[in-house]
Amino acid sequence: MSDKIKNRFGKSVTRREILGAGAAVGATIALGSGAKAAPMPESWDEEVDVVIVGTGFAGLAAAYEAQKAGASVALLEKMRTPGGNSIINGGVFSAAGSPQQADEGIEDSAELLYQDMLKAGLYLNHPELARLAAEKSVETWQWTVDEIGAEWVSDLRHMGGHSVPRAYKTKMGTGAGVVVPLLAKLAEMGVEPRTRALLKNIIRDDDGRVKGVVVHDGFRHPDLESGTPKTIKANRGVILATGGFGNDLAFRTMQDPRLDASVDTTNHPGATAEALREGMNIGAFLIQPSWVQLGPWTSADEKGFGRSPYFVQSVTAAYGLWVNWETGRRFVNELADRKTRADAIIAEGNKAIAFCDAGGYKVARRRLGDKMLDGLKSSGVVKEYPTLEAMAEEFGTPLASLQATIERFNASVDAGKDAEMGRYMQKDQFRIGAGPFYAVRLLPKVHHTMGGLAISARAEALDVVSMEPIPGLFVAGEAAGGVHGASRLGSCAFLDCLVFGRIAGQNAASMNSWS
Amino acid sequence: MSDKIKNRFGKSVTRREILGAGAAVGATIALGSGAKAAPMPESWDEEVDVVIVGTGFAGLAAAYEAQKAGASVALLEKMRTPGGNSIINGGVFSAAGSPQQADEGIEDSAELLYQDMLKAGLYLNHPELARLAAEKSVETWQWTVDEIGAEWVSDLRHMGGHSVPRAYKTKMGTGAGVVVPLLAKLAEMGVEPRTRALLKNIIRDDDGRVKGVVVHDGFRHPDLESGTPKTIKANRGVILATGGFGNDLAFRTMQDPRLDASVDTTNHPGATAEALREGMNIGAFLIQPSWVQLGPWTSADEKGFGRSPYFVQSVTAAYGLWVNWETGRRFVNELADRKTRADAIIAEGNKAIAFCDAGGYKVARRRLGDKMLDGLKSSGVVKEYPTLEAMAEEFGTPLASLQATIERFNASVDAGKDAEMGRYMQKDQFRIGAGPFYAVRLLPKVHHTMGGLAISARAEALDVVSMEPIPGLFVAGEAAGGVHGASRLGSCAFLDCLVFGRIAGQNAASMNSWS
Repeated sequence: MSDKIKNRFGKSVTRREILGAGAAVGATIALGSGAKAAPMPESWDEEVDVVIVGTGFAGLAAAYEAQKAGASVALLEKMRTPGGNSIINGGVFSAAGSPQQADEGIEDSAELLYQDMLKAGLYLNHPELARLAAEKSVETWQWTVDEIGAEWVSDLRHMGGHSVPRAYKTKMGTGAGVVVPLLAKLAEMGVEPRTRALLKNIIRDDDGRVKGVVVHDGFRHPDLESGTPKTIKANRGVILATGGFGNDLAFRTMQDPRLDASVDTTNHPGATAEALREGMNIGAFLIQPSWVQLGPWTSADEKGFGRSPYFVQSVTAAYGLWVNWETGRRFVNELADRKTRADAIIAEGNKAIAFCDAGGYKVARRRLGDKMLDGLKSSGVVKEYPTLEAMAEEFGTPLASLQATIERFNASVDAGKDAEMGRYMQKDQFRIGAGPFYAVRLLPKVHHTMGGLAISARAEALDVVSMEPIPGLFVAGEAAGGVHGASRLGSCAFLDCLVFGRIAGQNAASMNSWS
Repeated sequence: MSDKIKNRFGKSVTRREILGAGAAVGATIALGSGAKAAPMPESWDEEVDVVIVGTGFAGLAAAYEAQKAGASVALLEKMRTPGGNSIINGGVFSAAGSPQQADEGIEDSAELLYQDMLKAGLYLNHPELARLAAEKSVETWQWTVDEIGAEWVSDLRHMGGHSVPRAYKTKMGTGAGVVVPLLAKLAEMGVEPRTRALLKNIIRDDDGRVKGVVVHDGFRHPDLESGTPKTIKANRGVILATGGFGNDLAFRTMQDPRLDASVDTTNHPGATAEALREGMNIGAFLIQPSWVQLGPWTSADEKGFGRSPYFVQSVTAAYGLWVNWETGRRFVNELADRKTRADAIIAEGNKAIAFCDAGGYKVARRRLGDKMLDGLKSSGVVKEYPTLEAMAEEFGTPLASLQATIERFNASVDAGKDAEMGRYMQKDQFRIGAGPFYAVRLLPKVHHTMGGLAISARAEALDVVSMEPIPGLFVAGEAAGGVHGASRLGSCAFLDCLVFGRIAGQNAASMNSWS
């Protein structure tokens, strides 16, 4: 396996390339000069109860709960617009044991979701954190509906690595389906994100408590020296909801040198590590940073996350097939967890297509709509072929082998059991038949960083020396480590971020004021 | 694979078990209360040029080079005796392209060792660090002979994961073969380790430079509050050569929850993380901590490292076979790297024996001596059976399958090529024949922690915020991360520690004095 992975990742990089990565790529932050943690200021420019850094799912949920609990909040966003990776997230949320599953006769439970998370995470998950996310999945989904006013489609999705279909999809089709109503709700409550406000320092006093922050107002990403310094006193707490480091080339190559500039990412340009670095700088504890997830459903024919994942995951994984285009054979359970699938694609030398037939395309029209499909086709991401022969010819695939692969799968459909790869059979699983056929060239890209700052189940940051909570510092969402172990299941970031964002907001608001 | 690993590691641990691990196990340190990094003292109790923390290979080599360069040194050891894990280390050192290899007609090079290190490390190694260790392997071995007076046996060993035999073994048989003469050499130079001196704080001034340490004199492991605080000013630098965290249950389960108290370790009781924690606390950068190596050659019939690895590695891996005792079949290349072998044993449900026949035992007598072998037998670690039938009966192994396994291997010996597992064939490889037979029950144990603090090729600690060197702070040996990637090759810790220990000592001594 390692040799095969080397085909993509094993090129000989020099230390200079790693250490110089920050300079080499525009999306990577320019690092400041080294110094000790910032001292307490003599006076503060502003004072609030809770400072929340980041406006993705976790930051917005934290701000909502803190404000609801009566705390005054400052909600900071370093980029020009709020939402982070969440607003471009795929918009699927897992709720295990939901009323809708019951209606559809799908047996599920928090325990089953927890076990799915452990299995995908190679049992490296911090059990209490993973269990808490799973146990709060239904109530948190309900909260998005009842309190936030989010709208979801009624068609449950089956995401890779999950034992059963349990994922709701937002009506908007992306994470914006919760980000936008959360922003609207916060606006009603008088909370507006302050954009272009970079967290520069976390102020930790000699007594060990975090008491405020230094921000750079008017920050211009990625210049960490830009903007005007300003101190904000946090009487109750500071919440880091600053996301992962998928787009921080210098940080991620220190943890995994294979993930150099040749590997694309689905993340937005602001998914860099400066807040994680500052957290570590004042004594928070970095855990499990080696586990960087590559999304298996991205395309070689567009940059970043793009639009291919919607088509690949919701259509080809459940109703189509993934094959090595040189052999015409399947090589993985198309509904396996992300790490299993991404590793498998890489092991095939990235010579993989995900395809469906006319029947799958009908599902795609229902789920994605004609507008998105037309865009996917006109941009060349989804390629259309009138016949199987035409698709095989395009990729140089041995036709007989491809036909045999389809015949084996159709026999599995008839039998109600995928003998070849053990894929879950959908209730409406259909045989793959006549054209047209639709194919995407798969290419895994950096998607989620499982590691982060260690937290308690109350979302308190843990001190690297004492392993006790750092008073006044909370971490939620991708910035926190441990929930997902070695590999996160699809639709569980949304869950994780909302669950721990809410917990962080509630607990920060309930801290005693230190001043 | 993950399901099989779960057989051993996947038991459901609670968060409380993880966070409470420190209290539960005697070998784990009692953590102090959380607080910010220590301030500059108003005056110092003592002043030297270079403070070196730790007296394993890296610390001793650093002390030697710093003292040789004219710096005054304080050499600190928290335990009652010097040597750390190094003094109980297996005593094998890889030198690639040595004169002795040339004499024996073994083609080797630094490049080949480097490639072996990358392959075992799953290409997660920091290339410049791994290359530097490989390139300095012969000169460093020569240094142990010419400057330190270490003595080595002339019989080169073939360690797992190495392309060729290239490992020297100390005449003493353990790492003591270099630790003891290094201590003697240092004593000649006037440097004595100060035992029971715990590093409590690293003093990093507001200008970012590390300027000294707080130690606890009279420390009684593992009580971190014991001993008397004392400040030592370091005019030129502080070197952390404090080893890994293999015996720090709280730290290691935060990074890998599977490695709980049910998993034994080969490490000495002092292999805990308090110096790593303090390094992180003052702004050093933790990298790759998820990669914890399990030794594949340890025994279920003794605690810790024990003596089985000498027998298992130097005899059964090269001249015997490893089989699943329930199937009688081989399951891994017995000379693969450690991770490959440990993962394979765990995947077999830890039902593995390593055995050799009378011919192998002759090699054992030559390499290990009768005294060690008698001890291994009388303690029940190495079990002796007059016939293959008797061994099979003891373990409930299907005899016909075991005989067939041996016949296949003997055919490989005749052919000069291991068709089944691709194992390197020794120049004197012999067929496995008549009894007596000798077997060890294998059980992998935590052995080496690949992660640690990020360093430059000059062994400078890198700042977590700036990624620039922290002036005045150096890290060497297992405390540093990146050299070995996902998995260290056997015989390369000795190499790594001496190479980077020497570099750290030279560079710390050459720093400008700050006072």
